Amino acid sequence: MGGGLTQSVHILIDGQEQDQVPALDRAIQYGDGLFETIRIVEGRPCQWQRHLDRLSIGAERLGIPLPDVALWVAEAAELIQGQSDGVLKLILTRGEGGRGYRPPDHPKIRRLVLVYPPPNTPDPWQQGVGVRYCQTPAAINPALAGIKHLNRLDSVLARAEWDEPGIAEGLMFDATGVLVGGTMTNVFLWDGARLLTPPVDRAGIAGTVRGLTLELAARMGVECLVTRLDLEALDQVQGLFLTNSLIGVWPVRELAGRRFDLTRLPWALINRIHQTAFTPG
Amino acid sequence: MGGGLTQSVHILIDGQEQDQVPALDRAIQYGDGLFETIRIVEGRPCQWQRHLDRLSIGAERLGIPLPDVALWVAEAAELIQGQSDGVLKLILTRGEGGRGYRPPDHPKIRRLVLVYPPPNTPDPWQQGVGVRYCQTPAAINPALAGIKHLNRLDSVLARAEWDEPGIAEGLMFDATGVLVGGTMTNVFLWDGARLLTPPVDRAGIAGTVRGLTLELAARMGVECLVTRLDLEALDQVQGLFLTNSLIGVWPVRELAGRRFDLTRLPWALINRIHQTAFTPG
Repeated sequence: MGGGLTQSVHILIDGQEQDQVPALDRAIQYGDGLFETIRIVEGRPCQWQRHLDRLSIGAERLGIPLPDVALWVAEAAELIQGQSDGVLKLILTRGEGGRGYRPPDHPKIRRLVLVYPPPNTPDPWQQGVGVRYCQTPAAINPALAGIKHLNRLDSVLARAEWDEPGIAEGLMFDATGVLVGGTMTNVFLWDGARLLTPPVDRAGIAGTVRGLTLELAARMGVECLVTRLDLEALDQVQGLFLTNSLIGVWPVRELAGRRFDLTRLPWALINRIHQTAFTPG
Repeated sequence: MGGGLTQSVHILIDGQEQDQVPALDRAIQYGDGLFETIRIVEGRPCQWQRHLDRLSIGAERLGIPLPDVALWVAEAAELIQGQSDGVLKLILTRGEGGRGYRPPDHPKIRRLVLVYPPPNTPDPWQQGVGVRYCQTPAAINPALAGIKHLNRLDSVLARAEWDEPGIAEGLMFDATGVLVGGTMTNVFLWDGARLLTPPVDRAGIAGTVRGLTLELAARMGVECLVTRLDLEALDQVQGLFLTNSLIGVWPVRELAGRRFDLTRLPWALINRIHQTAFTPG
């Protein structure tokens, strides 16, 4: 398995072609680091700046020094060469440390660049996806919410709850019943007049396409309310869609057995999100 | 730094002397795994069974197959050879996976055994330690509470809040103000007649010495209430102590500037915890 996987993934670690990380790296020991997953279209990363901005915010929050971004971008370009479509993943770790949670005073950070084959996405994407509810709660922690850190066991356990190929995503709530998002997506509800989406100040990730959606909605005059939502709010919507950087936007065709009339969704906005999310550069 | 660290740590990965892990291991990608840190005394691990039991519960919870425990125990014994005092760390990962949170159907788990030098602990331990409050909240997630998984960023950020050598530990609360424990310890409050300690069903770790303390208290007729506690509860105590497998038990001499009369603590119990926690086997 290892060999097969490694063959289809290209990896640079601190600029070197290698595929191993020291066991004492704090990413292994504590999940002490950050990552980004970025869609490659026409051989170039999409929404580069948004990903670098989020990484920078995360590094600031965790107190991990940011590597030379120009260097990282150059390494990514080198590794992508010849691959027109795919997934670029960046991982920033706090590097090696002694035993114990306390971060080293002068961490020797480690930067990974990985390039994967393109994701499997339904085609045509406009026909929407099937979604379920997850039992696994999303972790509540204001200090870690919003950023894309390496502590992702809640999403792992939630994603392990189903294996039906017809279900593309699962919605997660926190332990108090507040809607957080999908295991790998942000969620936008449509009540017929406005979009509603959960804040990411206590749980969840500030997705790059979430940010893009908020901006495009404002520009196109579509009201979007960032507000706490629960299961009851979901019962009242006319439809919903999911966003992330690899899939762009997925309209939801069915949620836990309930079918939606996709024509009711704000398609002008949705088409614009799709187009913009997958524009390289 | 890497070289220096690696020199003082001995590592076996899947039984082989090596110190690198594939970058695609899910421990690096998502913190998808478990660990145990175990005190070595007279060349033997202390409280072996409690650690293996917790690992087994954690593996069940995360859906990670447990490796052959006899094999792991034998590897630990091999690596400890010649080291009379130290720290044994076990890490179990879900192994390599493709991109995405979904766990592989048939994970090829990876087992790490690491042996570190002994921890720095105050001597004499009976004189107690200084403790502070941390601002970083402990994550709330009932699905992950209690087990010793590799998602430890909350403890990392809390431990980064101070570097005064006189402060040995910091107490953490969840985002709703409920006391969880120390960054690396469980906490027991003493109200003059009873012990009080937080449950570990929403946040925190079920420490092996916490379990030992509950058992010894029951056996010695010391009442111990497992109950939700907050800052106000801390204001009312006569004293407190901390437990973990590497330090055994630490009475708290001072908490955020408040000094405690250590003679008020239940010393018969505390001495017994100390003795039992550090009995090999």
